[in-house]
Amino acid sequence: MSAAISAFALRGLPEIEQGDDLAALIAAAAGDLGDGDVVVIAHKAVSKAQGRVRRLAEIEPSERALALAAEHGKDARHVQAILDESSELLRAERGVLIVRTHHGFVCANAGVDESNAPAEGTLVLLPLDPDGAARELRARLRELTGRRPAVVITDSFGRAWRLGQLDTAIGVAGLAPLDDWRGRRDRRGRELHASVIAVADAVAATADLARAKDSGEPVVIVRGLSAQVQELDGPGAAALLRPRAEDLFG
Amino acid sequence: MSAAISAFALRGLPEIEQGDDLAALIAAAAGDLGDGDVVVIAHKAVSKAQGRVRRLAEIEPSERALALAAEHGKDARHVQAILDESSELLRAERGVLIVRTHHGFVCANAGVDESNAPAEGTLVLLPLDPDGAARELRARLRELTGRRPAVVITDSFGRAWRLGQLDTAIGVAGLAPLDDWRGRRDRRGRELHASVIAVADAVAATADLARAKDSGEPVVIVRGLSAQVQELDGPGAAALLRPRAEDLFG
Repeated sequence: MSAAISAFALRGLPEIEQGDDLAALIAAAAGDLGDGDVVVIAHKAVSKAQGRVRRLAEIEPSERALALAAEHGKDARHVQAILDESSELLRAERGVLIVRTHHGFVCANAGVDESNAPAEGTLVLLPLDPDGAARELRARLRELTGRRPAVVITDSFGRAWRLGQLDTAIGVAGLAPLDDWRGRRDRRGRELHASVIAVADAVAATADLARAKDSGEPVVIVRGLSAQVQELDGPGAAALLRPRAEDLFG
Repeated sequence: MSAAISAFALRGLPEIEQGDDLAALIAAAAGDLGDGDVVVIAHKAVSKAQGRVRRLAEIEPSERALALAAEHGKDARHVQAILDESSELLRAERGVLIVRTHHGFVCANAGVDESNAPAEGTLVLLPLDPDGAARELRARLRELTGRRPAVVITDSFGRAWRLGQLDTAIGVAGLAPLDDWRGRRDRRGRELHASVIAVADAVAATADLARAKDSGEPVVIVRGLSAQVQELDGPGAAALLRPRAEDLFG
């Protein structure tokens, strides 16, 4: 069976602030949510609601941050914030620090970003536990609406060998993050090899197409995936991380 | 402005064979194509129409292919086909060869695949010039329908640090492959940093959600991107390749 997929951005959400009940704002703006819907949220809305924001003026850079900042033409306090979010620095070049975050994501600058920050001189961090945040948002949406849409929290990640960024799932609840076709057979009866579809990442990328970057539309509803939306929250975006023992490029 | 995106797989396409007029088959199955539509085609349909298929029995493995095959538990003729498609072998581990193809794509096994091959003992290769193939398909679709939908040819690529595969654009005509927001400003007037959206890859990922892997649906129509669909064919998927001089992980 082929499915028709659709995605549209929610309008009318206010600027998110610390302590906001994000699920209530989404439920109000979305109107009719379905059990098979996926609510895709740009992480900054979640991070701001959580207060995952730091003021540059309150950051004391370490020697290492000062050295990296000097070498890469960055603000040492910004570099310190990146290092604080990271378990490992993989590469530093052309003003970008490629790190492994404490969550295990390999990305540029640990997702620490100035754009769309709540005020000048502040940095927005990734949520502390994006899978946990997705589960909480899902539970609250269910409480408010009586429906159990899946929740995906996203960030824009670069890629090692391709230009441009792709929105990527960093927190997932209620959506199968991977769809594993290995062992199933193709139309000629031959076993399909290495076909594990990163569904949650594909959903994140789809949502980004429905949103304009400058329009303050952090939430997109993706429809047509009821086969992948599950009653249980499932393993989350953690299941999308390649184990370090299998990392060929770290 | 937010856009509503939709995607649906074309039904009723026959199994593609060498010499088929793929654009004519698509035009017949699609019915009503619009100028702003994106026709997303799994590369195997294009490769098969082009005859980019090799018989294992006709491949003579080199010493290098024999050694790699022995080390990684693969068929040496299959390894030879992969090497023939590659300019560089980046990693070989766990039965997977990560290569740079002659086109410049970094992917597993140079996209050479047995599943959904036209017959036992055959391998399907990537198209020789996927951007050229996309341009030809677009021109032929225009000739047949009077419309100028964009064309994206895709393959499923793994990722260095994430599990699962994501359909990725390997050939593009008529769609801006990248949407560059750098220098534009966020809602507070601050310049947006490093926001270049890999639109063509997001479209490829979206299309894959609308298709079931076992159902023989190589073509998906993605709607709602008329702002990104252009009269000119544009730079193609080649514009998505990170230049080798900027490769931190090769």
